Amino acid sequence: MVGRCPTTSGTDGVKRQSAFNPESFSDALSAAEAKGQQFEQVYFVACGASLADLYPSRYFLDRESRQLRTAGYSSNEFVHAEPAALNHGSLVVVCSHSGGTAETVQAAKLARESGAFVVTLTHNQQSDLAPHSDYSILYDWGEQSRVDDNPMAVALAISAETLKRIEGYVGYTDFRNAMEQVNNLVQAARERVRGRSEEFAAASADESLYYVLSSGASYGHARSFAGSGLMEMQWLDASAIHTGEFFHGPFEITSRAKNFFLLKNEGCTRPLDQRAEDFLRQYAGQLEVIDARQLGISALAAGVVDYFNPILFYSVLCEYRDALARVRRHPIDTRRYMGKVDY
Amino acid sequence: MVGRCPTTSGTDGVKRQSAFNPESFSDALSAAEAKGQQFEQVYFVACGASLADLYPSRYFLDRESRQLRTAGYSSNEFVHAEPAALNHGSLVVVCSHSGGTAETVQAAKLARESGAFVVTLTHNQQSDLAPHSDYSILYDWGEQSRVDDNPMAVALAISAETLKRIEGYVGYTDFRNAMEQVNNLVQAARERVRGRSEEFAAASADESLYYVLSSGASYGHARSFAGSGLMEMQWLDASAIHTGEFFHGPFEITSRAKNFFLLKNEGCTRPLDQRAEDFLRQYAGQLEVIDARQLGISALAAGVVDYFNPILFYSVLCEYRDALARVRRHPIDTRRYMGKVDY
Repeated sequence: MVGRCPTTSGTDGVKRQSAFNPESFSDALSAAEAKGQQFEQVYFVACGASLADLYPSRYFLDRESRQLRTAGYSSNEFVHAEPAALNHGSLVVVCSHSGGTAETVQAAKLARESGAFVVTLTHNQQSDLAPHSDYSILYDWGEQSRVDDNPMAVALAISAETLKRIEGYVGYTDFRNAMEQVNNLVQAARERVRGRSEEFAAASADESLYYVLSSGASYGHARSFAGSGLMEMQWLDASAIHTGEFFHGPFEITSRAKNFFLLKNEGCTRPLDQRAEDFLRQYAGQLEVIDARQLGISALAAGVVDYFNPILFYSVLCEYRDALARVRRHPIDTRRYMGKVDY
Repeated sequence: MVGRCPTTSGTDGVKRQSAFNPESFSDALSAAEAKGQQFEQVYFVACGASLADLYPSRYFLDRESRQLRTAGYSSNEFVHAEPAALNHGSLVVVCSHSGGTAETVQAAKLARESGAFVVTLTHNQQSDLAPHSDYSILYDWGEQSRVDDNPMAVALAISAETLKRIEGYVGYTDFRNAMEQVNNLVQAARERVRGRSEEFAAASADESLYYVLSSGASYGHARSFAGSGLMEMQWLDASAIHTGEFFHGPFEITSRAKNFFLLKNEGCTRPLDQRAEDFLRQYAGQLEVIDARQLGISALAAGVVDYFNPILFYSVLCEYRDALARVRRHPIDTRRYMGKVDY
């Protein structure tokens, strides 16, 4: 199993098609419906960073859908404790970067055997997911790839397409427009934080623990930046907190000795993040606010911007993670257990 | 706002009725249905420890229901980003120990105005939730109360009753029997860990950071023990990790210098917890395994035991938290921000 580090180029100079083709996917759903599949639930199943990539999709359907049930699972929990509703009325979106994560392959197999329509996302053309897939998407990856061809955006596009098809989605045009805009916007944001992230890293070389706060569609990436960006790739202690929950227990840990990242969303849950920021500015030690609004995301339509925040945060936080890696002389692909010991 | 610490007695020597009456609740659902409410979704809304109390219920419906949509929200997220499906087909379970948590009261108000059937749980007879409630439950609390009269079990009982009524629940008899058994079982478990928790605390007086691992229905309480038991009540750094996710990033943090609590479930997700235990025994520093099986929970029927694990973990971990409080001379109700500063 290989950790996912976007350090290799995903482009080869040839103009490529988008990783996701809405028409082709919609046709595949039509064909499934013609065979009697009537979709009532959408499950998102993956592990680690791939599960975080699916979080905005689950959040999107949970908020926008009037009919569809939705849930997200770490693959091994899905395998060992499958939901009773898993059946031919289920659309199961499964993601594994390497295409070989054992629990995820098993989850796809289980879902398909239950009669579900299985959509797989992977970066590996020879993925072990292939035999368990009704519709497979090979997404792009690497510094040179477009973010709308990366798994977080692709899964979100799948979700919007599914919603539109099953029950209609009034925000669909805004959503597709935002998907067209997001790559340029994110690349510009990434440029903008580069200097800041270097300064942050220089001032943080000796820190050992970070709290990562966010809300809404971005809470999944707060968890992933903690668990993958910091714990896995930097062996730094980390803990993610939802800004809505912060004031109901966790904030008592705040002091000048503690360090916080705040992923401040544009959109509906911004007041939750703002409240955390106001408190932390007064009582915390180091506070790094990554403000999606300041980084230009408000160019996207207000009705859909919520779902695009984590796409921006993912890329921007790569700058912070990589800057920390350089200052700490701890390359992001250094592992002590994964691929090295049995577990 | 007052943090919830079960240090005061909830009994007065008088034999009291159970906090939850299945027949009365079922009658209330019938009356709502007679007025045209057809329940399609069940939402759980609260903050902090109360939200953790609702987690097993959301997990239960997510796994057992074939028809009902379910989701859980931190109150302020529900208020600022309400789900599109919130309407007269929604049953919304809202919990606030003090009955006055502002965001939670607002969430109950919003839900009721949307036409939902609102069930409120509180320990305060003069709760601000009352005007926004279709069915209100005053639960018991304190060292002397029965765990099946505490909010986690009461919410779970609400969920089982709802499931039975809406679509039938084959495990219902086992579930009710388990609810009868769980109090004695938990009290015995609590006695059993008392000595061990004292030893643990004595050996841990100088530690400052804990990882708390679990899976299944208990993952919510892993988060709550981290966020409330350790961060809020002991000002200790803490981070919760799902055992299914542990091997997909976070485990790289493991070393002899790190401390872990593992809440090891009985039931379907036990293999996930076991895998984490096997790894941690080899590579971690301090590892405290709270094994629900060793603590007697297997007396409950196999088909329902998964959902009762967190009820046991809650009580047992109070012993650990209280032992830490004594050794560290940090009473569990010490606050530096809540009720002391504006935020």
